Amino acid sequence: MHIVCSDLEGVFVPEIWIGVAEKTGIKELRLTTRDISDYDILMKKRLAILDKHNLKMQDIQEVIESLDPFEGAVEFLDWLRPRSQVIIISDTFTQFAGPLMKKLGWPTLICNSLSLNKDGSIIDYNIRQKDGKQKAVLSLKNLNYQIIAVGDSYNDITMLKAADTGILFRPPDNIKNEFKELPVSYNYDELKKIIRKTLETT
Amino acid sequence: MHIVCSDLEGVFVPEIWIGVAEKTGIKELRLTTRDISDYDILMKKRLAILDKHNLKMQDIQEVIESLDPFEGAVEFLDWLRPRSQVIIISDTFTQFAGPLMKKLGWPTLICNSLSLNKDGSIIDYNIRQKDGKQKAVLSLKNLNYQIIAVGDSYNDITMLKAADTGILFRPPDNIKNEFKELPVSYNYDELKKIIRKTLETT
Repeated sequence: MHIVCSDLEGVFVPEIWIGVAEKTGIKELRLTTRDISDYDILMKKRLAILDKHNLKMQDIQEVIESLDPFEGAVEFLDWLRPRSQVIIISDTFTQFAGPLMKKLGWPTLICNSLSLNKDGSIIDYNIRQKDGKQKAVLSLKNLNYQIIAVGDSYNDITMLKAADTGILFRPPDNIKNEFKELPVSYNYDELKKIIRKTLETT
Repeated sequence: MHIVCSDLEGVFVPEIWIGVAEKTGIKELRLTTRDISDYDILMKKRLAILDKHNLKMQDIQEVIESLDPFEGAVEFLDWLRPRSQVIIISDTFTQFAGPLMKKLGWPTLICNSLSLNKDGSIIDYNIRQKDGKQKAVLSLKNLNYQIIAVGDSYNDITMLKAADTGILFRPPDNIKNEFKELPVSYNYDELKKIIRKTLETT
């Protein structure tokens, strides 16, 4: 029996912070770990920017509600769910993901969370656990499932390696070249093909 | 962050074997662990009965497709999914559950499986692991989730006890009396009330 564990942003939906930056016009929110490599410093900066602009959780959620899953993502998940269990494993925050999960038909999501004040301002972020993606895959393997993991970037690699089958989806060239052992897909049809073959042979 | 881990049969859908017995008119399929306490002997007998009547996987699935979730089950899950992650944890078989999971909107399901011949006859059953329900809850707890578990019968008790909050749903009186420490619900409104309170206070 199989569980497909897939990353969210870059696989089914656009990068949420980039989307928020574009929709709000706040360019500083485009900062990523490529600009500030320390995730904690980056996140504290992002939360300070939201606070400066007096953006509360509900404002951000409204912005995120205006984002859409990638074309074909909903249909891909509709194809997948009768064939395998599916769990989305992401570094995003449950409150951010909500509006997008709704559009994807509420697949189970394992991710992080934000702490909110009563007035809806975001006061902190909580990482569920260190190496959360990898640990989720290892826990599900312990339940005697064969894990097929799908991801697009560096923070997915330990998860892809921990899985029985790890698949890259639209990775940047540097990641594709560094992890040549991982099969690569660039669209949902290619991803389906690899998953179908894995389900049939394992 | 929370995951609601719920049993399937007796909580969202009728007992599948009973349903199959009624729809096919094969009374012997009504046998349960109350009649034959050894689960392995019971399952082998059930598979022999299916074989005797020349019922293949597709026939059984057609029968199961004619079963429906309990009234209010779909609405309950629609209420729950935006509030908490949900995983169904069941002793049933993935091939049996399929048609019912479709009607429930494909929540993630952790369960067992059947081995099929190429002609679709059921040749054996595979228990994913011993104490599978309890182990699933313990694994998800290890991911730093608070677990709310819901079940109705003896085979749910270790899962309910392993969870942070265990809730009985429409239990028989003997179970309710034996496990007085577990909160009890008899309909989805009562279950919602307990879950809502748990989500707010933990």
